[in-house]
This record gives sequence, structure tokens and C-alpha cells, in this order.
Amino acid sequence: MTQTGDKETAAAVPALVTREAFRDGMARLAGAVNIVTTDGPGGRAGFTATAVCSVTDDPPTLLVCLNRQSSAMPAFAANEAVCVNTVGPRHRDLAMTFGGRTPMSERFAETGWHRGVSGAPVLEAAVVSFDCRVSHRHLCGTHEVIFCEVVGVVSDPTEPGAAYFARKFHDLPV
Amino acid sequence: MTQTGDKETAAAVPALVTREAFRDGMARLAGAVNIVTTDGPGGRAGFTATAVCSVTDDPPTLLVCLNRQSSAMPAFAANEAVCVNTVGPRHRDLAMTFGGRTPMSERFAETGWHRGVSGAPVLEAAVVSFDCRVSHRHLCGTHEVIFCEVVGVVSDPTEPGAAYFARKFHDLPV
Repeated sequence: MTQTGDKETAAAVPALVTREAFRDGMARLAGAVNIVTTDGPGGRAGFTATAVCSVTDDPPTLLVCLNRQSSAMPAFAANEAVCVNTVGPRHRDLAMTFGGRTPMSERFAETGWHRGVSGAPVLEAAVVSFDCRVSHRHLCGTHEVIFCEVVGVVSDPTEPGAAYFARKFHDLPV
Repeated sequence: MTQTGDKETAAAVPALVTREAFRDGMARLAGAVNIVTTDGPGGRAGFTATAVCSVTDDPPTLLVCLNRQSSAMPAFAANEAVCVNTVGPRHRDLAMTFGGRTPMSERFAETGWHRGVSGAPVLEAAVVSFDCRVSHRHLCGTHEVIFCEVVGVVSDPTEPGAAYFARKFHDLPV
């Protein structure tokens, strides 16, 4: 959406906080950096997200929020397999690639992927990977909230983590 | 729930990953530390959570996951006002208080709170506070996912942040 479009919407339905104020606030809510992937009838795709959240351990479930305008959306809409790969310092460049404009077909060009139980791409040497199947979807404004039941967890306790805070990466020691 | 209860449930409906494996994995997904508060007909209450997530900026919305067995649940179920107070190093002890067994009436004993537009308690000198009204609720297993439309944002860009990772607090410089 363009800036102009933003302003027109804001004029039509005045919000109590502007999008800019919300985004600036959210930049100060630290989040893990995750490369979220899928594969299946809709093809292979992936994007970088901080909007990932644990929901419940019974049944083990997390959620991911995805902008419906995202180039990854058609694949995530058609597929049931999702993998959340939480990454640390060693995958900072890869996280930038999956968060940028690189064509979907090129994002997986680097080695270091294998197929999880769900069928989604699992990243080697991630801090932790949650291999999942979609259990529920909920539309909310511009985004789809994808609830995912976890069918596999792979973790490397020796890998340092990362947080995105104040629009910067921060390394987190183990 | 007790360990025995967990095992009985697992025996009745075998999960592909155990609760322990899920929890150990989630400990490696870094998260902001948030003191989430409410007030209204159900009374004043608050709890510490990392399970907070940005959803969309149109309309500005976040979500919070709350265990339905939590002592804070009755108040959050009855009220429409919610404030997510993201905290840094200076509020580490307060986050422990809101995450422990301190009676609800004593958690707000320290000074440093004011009432937001929604009616929920807003913490002074938080890294960022999102004052909200509940827009949607979704049950998922043991938890309720509370979708909240943001009606006010207060942020202090000079406050360092914090992330919870590998079961430890980590300070995040501005």
C-alpha cells in the first residue's frame, strides 16, 4: 500500500493511533528473528518474521502473522506445512535475504536445508526449528494469523540467539 | 496441571512432540518481557508474558496469549481494557513479581502506574506501552488468544530493552 493510500484510509476512519506511532512502538518490542518456510501444492516459499508467538503446549501450537499482500502469501494460503526456523548471528544475511525482494526461487539457493516431517524446509543450524501443520487461520485487517500445530522440534543449544530491537539485530549469548 | 496429568493426557492422545520438547524449543525463541494489565468490571489484574505479538497496523492490533488457568484470567475475561507494558532492565524485579505467586492486590503496590485511555494500568518508564481494547478472542487448547486494538502508545526511546532467551534475561542497548 502506498503512503497516499494510508493517508486516505486514515482520513476515512480515524484511528486513535497512527500506523507510524504503532510501528515505532512495535520497533521497541523485542522479537526473535525467524525464517518461516512452507512447501506443498502452492510451491515452496519463505519470509522473515518477528511476528511469531507461542500459543499453548497442549496441543503444542504457535502462530505466525503474515501480510496478505506478501509475495509468500499464495504459497502459505495453499499449503498446510509450515516451518518456523528461529535464527541467530550466523544467519543474519539469510534473514535479510528472506526479508527482502529476492525472488522466491532464489531464496533457497544456499545449501543447508532439509525436508521436515510436514514437508516444509527446515534450516540446518537454526537456533530452533518448529516443524508444523496449519490448524487454524484467522483474518485480522491486513494480515492472516496462521495457527500451527508443532509436529517436530529441532534445537541446537550451542547456537547463540538474536533479537530484533530498536530496528537493529542484537546477538544473545547462550 | 500436574506431571501425572500431563502423562495421562499424552497417553490418551499421543502428540508428535512432547510438551517438554515444545517448551525447551520455545525457551530458545527470544521474546520481549511484558507486564500485561487490565482493569474494569472484573477488577484490576496483571501478569508477565512473552507471548505477545504484533498482528497488523490497520487497524493497529496486537495479541496476547493467556493460560485459562491463570489467576489473572477471570479479570481479563470480564474486562475489555488491556495494556501491554514492555519492560527493560529497570523493571526486572517487577516482571518477576507479576510472573510469580504474589496476590493480585499486591502486584500494583509499588508506585509508577497511571490509568490509560482504555482504563487499564499503564506502567511509568516502560520501554513501550500499548493501551488497548479487546477486539476478538480465540480459544486454543489451554490458552485464550486475546486480540487487542491499540488506542494509545507511549514509548521512551532512551530506555534499554530486554529479551528473555534460554531462560535468562538479556539487556538490549538502545
